[in-house]
Amino acid sequence: MESEGHETEPGTTRPGGRTARVRAAVLEAAGDVLAEHGFAHLDLADVARRAGVGKTTVYRRWGTATGLVTDLLLDMAQQSVPRTETGSLLGDLTANARLVQRTLADPRQGALFKAVIAAATCDPKAAEALHGFYAVRVKEWAPCVRQAAARGEVPEDTDPYEVIRAASAPLYYRLLTTDLPLDEAAADRAATATAAAARAGAFGRGA
Amino acid sequence: MESEGHETEPGTTRPGGRTARVRAAVLEAAGDVLAEHGFAHLDLADVARRAGVGKTTVYRRWGTATGLVTDLLLDMAQQSVPRTETGSLLGDLTANARLVQRTLADPRQGALFKAVIAAATCDPKAAEALHGFYAVRVKEWAPCVRQAAARGEVPEDTDPYEVIRAASAPLYYRLLTTDLPLDEAAADRAATATAAAARAGAFGRGA
Repeated sequence: MESEGHETEPGTTRPGGRTARVRAAVLEAAGDVLAEHGFAHLDLADVARRAGVGKTTVYRRWGTATGLVTDLLLDMAQQSVPRTETGSLLGDLTANARLVQRTLADPRQGALFKAVIAAATCDPKAAEALHGFYAVRVKEWAPCVRQAAARGEVPEDTDPYEVIRAASAPLYYRLLTTDLPLDEAAADRAATATAAAARAGAFGRGA
Repeated sequence: MESEGHETEPGTTRPGGRTARVRAAVLEAAGDVLAEHGFAHLDLADVARRAGVGKTTVYRRWGTATGLVTDLLLDMAQQSVPRTETGSLLGDLTANARLVQRTLADPRQGALFKAVIAAATCDPKAAEALHGFYAVRVKEWAPCVRQAAARGEVPEDTDPYEVIRAASAPLYYRLLTTDLPLDEAAADRAATATAAAARAGAFGRGA
């Protein structure tokens, strides 16, 4: 508390700036702990120590491990990259699938995603935050399916959300249920299969 | 230990029969605890109490929570139902996807699968057992793709394992990353999309 008192004295630093810096440090530390040890070992005192932030600040602002995961997922959704536009559904879905594949194949990010998925299986608030994260990502990419429909690549009644989810699903399934490599071939196969199925009308709302 | 000593006296009961009954009771209790509370709360003494089995027996035979999850997944693989043969790839994949969907939509089974997936994210031995379970299921269903290739429904070089995994992936992705209903429409969409993609050659080994 003392150090915080010092730093928020007029003229020392902007409170908003400090708040943002503390949040960034705490969420990065929380991500590290999740990636290294999983949700069951996400200890607020440990996170505070790693972030170089007062324990009281972390307890007061985030409260619980669930509070940390929820804010981390909110931050991940806000930081996540905009979609790529390539001019074809296959190109767009390949860009999407490769982005997911590179993220999940990265040791820290892959472990982090496994940890937040595990957290969501046993904590309703973490589940809500996780669903929110994926809803943002699916909404970001959905327009590529609407554009494909406008170009006549897929039927008009194609459900954009189902198409986007279909391109990611095999990569997550591979990550969670197999020890097979999460390579670019897996991403390209997911994109090719989804584009072919969409062209064949498999994601029609009436299908 | 005393009660076990009594029951394994000659003529009281067949040791194999008792061993099998104890295992069935313990694994059912372990599944209940996993479904209700998750892997982090899988306590061997609690499982023993619920199963009506001596604590020492459970500790000696399974050792740890990981040991219980590993044996449960082995049992689930052994108990799992044989594939359905309908005469068409779409029919077979629909039967497969509906089986997965009914399993995951069942409150106890859905929670149990979430718990073992979560366990696998933080425990290498549980992960190995989970991968083994899915390898058995994929191998069980793979012949339906080879039969489809023999009938000329899909290209000769279609990878049966990738096709079977593709039919399940959207259902697991939906279970873990959304709060959308895991209904029969989701199963049928997964099967239709996978069959269409397979027919289009998206799962060719050279693809």
